[in-house]
Amino acid sequence: MAAEHAIRPREADVIFGIANRAKQAAEQYGSENIINSTIGALLDDNGKLIAFNTVYDTLKSMDNAQIAAYAALEGDHDYLDASIRACFMDKKPVGHIRSVATPGGTGAVRHAVCNYTNPGDTFLTADWFWEPYQTIADENGRKLDTYNLFNEKNEFDFESYKKQFEAYLIKQKRILIVLNTPAHNPTGYTISDGEWDRIIDLAKEHAANPENKIIFLVDVAYIDFAGDDARDFMPKFGNLPKNIMTLFAFSASKSYTMYGLRCGAIICVTPSEDLAEEFFYSCAHSNRGTWSNGTKGAMHVIATIYNDKTLYEECEKERNIYRNLLKKRGDAFLRSVNEVGLPITNYRGGFFVSVPCAEPEKLCKLLIEDKLFAVPLRKGIRLALCAISEEKCAQTPAMIKKALSKM
Amino acid sequence: MAAEHAIRPREADVIFGIANRAKQAAEQYGSENIINSTIGALLDDNGKLIAFNTVYDTLKSMDNAQIAAYAALEGDHDYLDASIRACFMDKKPVGHIRSVATPGGTGAVRHAVCNYTNPGDTFLTADWFWEPYQTIADENGRKLDTYNLFNEKNEFDFESYKKQFEAYLIKQKRILIVLNTPAHNPTGYTISDGEWDRIIDLAKEHAANPENKIIFLVDVAYIDFAGDDARDFMPKFGNLPKNIMTLFAFSASKSYTMYGLRCGAIICVTPSEDLAEEFFYSCAHSNRGTWSNGTKGAMHVIATIYNDKTLYEECEKERNIYRNLLKKRGDAFLRSVNEVGLPITNYRGGFFVSVPCAEPEKLCKLLIEDKLFAVPLRKGIRLALCAISEEKCAQTPAMIKKALSKM
Repeated sequence: MAAEHAIRPREADVIFGIANRAKQAAEQYGSENIINSTIGALLDDNGKLIAFNTVYDTLKSMDNAQIAAYAALEGDHDYLDASIRACFMDKKPVGHIRSVATPGGTGAVRHAVCNYTNPGDTFLTADWFWEPYQTIADENGRKLDTYNLFNEKNEFDFESYKKQFEAYLIKQKRILIVLNTPAHNPTGYTISDGEWDRIIDLAKEHAANPENKIIFLVDVAYIDFAGDDARDFMPKFGNLPKNIMTLFAFSASKSYTMYGLRCGAIICVTPSEDLAEEFFYSCAHSNRGTWSNGTKGAMHVIATIYNDKTLYEECEKERNIYRNLLKKRGDAFLRSVNEVGLPITNYRGGFFVSVPCAEPEKLCKLLIEDKLFAVPLRKGIRLALCAISEEKCAQTPAMIKKALSKM
Repeated sequence: MAAEHAIRPREADVIFGIANRAKQAAEQYGSENIINSTIGALLDDNGKLIAFNTVYDTLKSMDNAQIAAYAALEGDHDYLDASIRACFMDKKPVGHIRSVATPGGTGAVRHAVCNYTNPGDTFLTADWFWEPYQTIADENGRKLDTYNLFNEKNEFDFESYKKQFEAYLIKQKRILIVLNTPAHNPTGYTISDGEWDRIIDLAKEHAANPENKIIFLVDVAYIDFAGDDARDFMPKFGNLPKNIMTLFAFSASKSYTMYGLRCGAIICVTPSEDLAEEFFYSCAHSNRGTWSNGTKGAMHVIATIYNDKTLYEECEKERNIYRNLLKKRGDAFLRSVNEVGLPITNYRGGFFVSVPCAEPEKLCKLLIEDKLFAVPLRKGIRLALCAISEEKCAQTPAMIKKALSKM
């Protein structure tokens, strides 16, 4: 009965399946005796989800009617201001900047794809990518193609990027590139300042042809767990030509432990006030025609944090505790990786790291025998350092090395 | 820079504009001296948004980490079960019933339109309709056409419905009809049991041709404010032919005063287990490719209410207080309508009623002179009885009658 384009494979989500097996194993053997590295959220060393007190105290202190009310379609205006501050902090690019609320980062990617590509168009991302980018493409009648994220030196493969960028720009005269950075999911890679310069220079070169339209979508979901200099690249998007539009997918999910509250924004940076207005009305229309408005209480929490210096500082302090926790886990993991000589993706921080391999599902199965649960991707397996203790982070490289030797 | 299909008119929302003027007038003259009949949410007689204590006590008693966590992509399973119970209560149709969580009713309409029509297709609704149906059509590359809701007797215009239904079914071999009932927004109309029989009989007649695919989307957003017999029509959707699929847009916004928490579901009723599965995977894919998962805390509140008899009864009791309040407002309005002889849409209950007129914007402007704020639609003006006191409900018909006489 569904329209043909909407008939989908009837298969359970792979991650969900493995996460379920991990849960069963935890019940059988005790959670301390297994390593569940499948969950994409920050857990403490006992496996409990971290939720900032600053965030939930604020939410719970709200008047019921204030939580109950509809937010504005485009997002409440104090939230939209706060989302811009939360996205850029003190590294705001020069230009016209507008924000429209979305339910998490996913909604922002959906709007970028639907509003800045044509039906049937292809948009680009790295070959290691967050699988829902493909789902968003499929759901909205677009195609996704990839460039190689890493060259033979395990660094950003600019040549591959350039080749794909130019091929699609010639063909479509319009190109959307989704760049998940810093602390890329699933590799932990962060595009460096020098790499950004080359990416932007290439865009400027092609922007000389006024027929070309170049749109970057920078998905910064993990930015607040990516180090103190994570926002240093942002001012580069100021003063670019008019036919380069930069969009940011802002998400409160990880930065404010608000995964389940569905709060994010799509934010544009452009030298043109006119194009910023165009962006605003386009995305506000998309809100109304897709999910209507967003979660009022979540917006209010973010707005309050950015309008109350004490609360803001407390929230930062709280996040820093867990940022350090995650940093230690990453360090422990990297130390063990070096000790055992395990080839991994170029991890520079964040929730995830991956191990390249030819048969990811097979590797995951072998690891389950050792009670280590990881997620199989297209090009390797993903480990969620965010979800396991420092001690367990240190143990996994040797386990993976051993399993690889059996393949 | 936006793709051509995504460039939208740069105009402020009409309702928002008038609501803003009402707010200014309230500040200038005192809210007791104006009638702000623009707001689509249930307010008490002092203009404060009603929020059920049962709902918000449950939300606020949740563990922070429980609110913070991601919900399942398709919706948490205890919520999905609860959404089916909340939708049908004791009038569940016979058949295969599945539910997928959506952010409010809007998300359910979006999924029905995107998954059960083809790009470029036309779907049908009444000529008095909730304007976002048009936005959803525009946003997703579909068209909306209408049948006349009312005939010359101010009752359901079955002839017009039949004509449009058959025209599009012949042309498309597939037809989606969006029926906002009971207590239709913006007229307050409820399709009667006898009218439903004619609608369903017509569908069955055309379902004899197995090439035809007929999909009803029943938008029941206002059902819990539509009287005790509001669900009596529901069992009619059991045991229909396989090529008639019934979808329900369930919303917690009004029934549980959870407007800003974005909680709803799309629910299917079909005689075919296979088609119910198809529905489930189609809509779960749509979730992942549009907004990802839904609001965890909101789902938990609904699930808790339906798994705790005492809480359920308290919530019912709380809603009944306000249902009676709204009923009294409607009765007062109708009494005055009869006294002054004002022609209105056939109001049978709910949040809204409309007054047909040729120049809605002009009428709204005239009413603002008398400090009565209403929303101009295509075919008349909409009054939100949910937002004004019984006393004010009684006053408005004479005011509108007077304004109409000046036109």
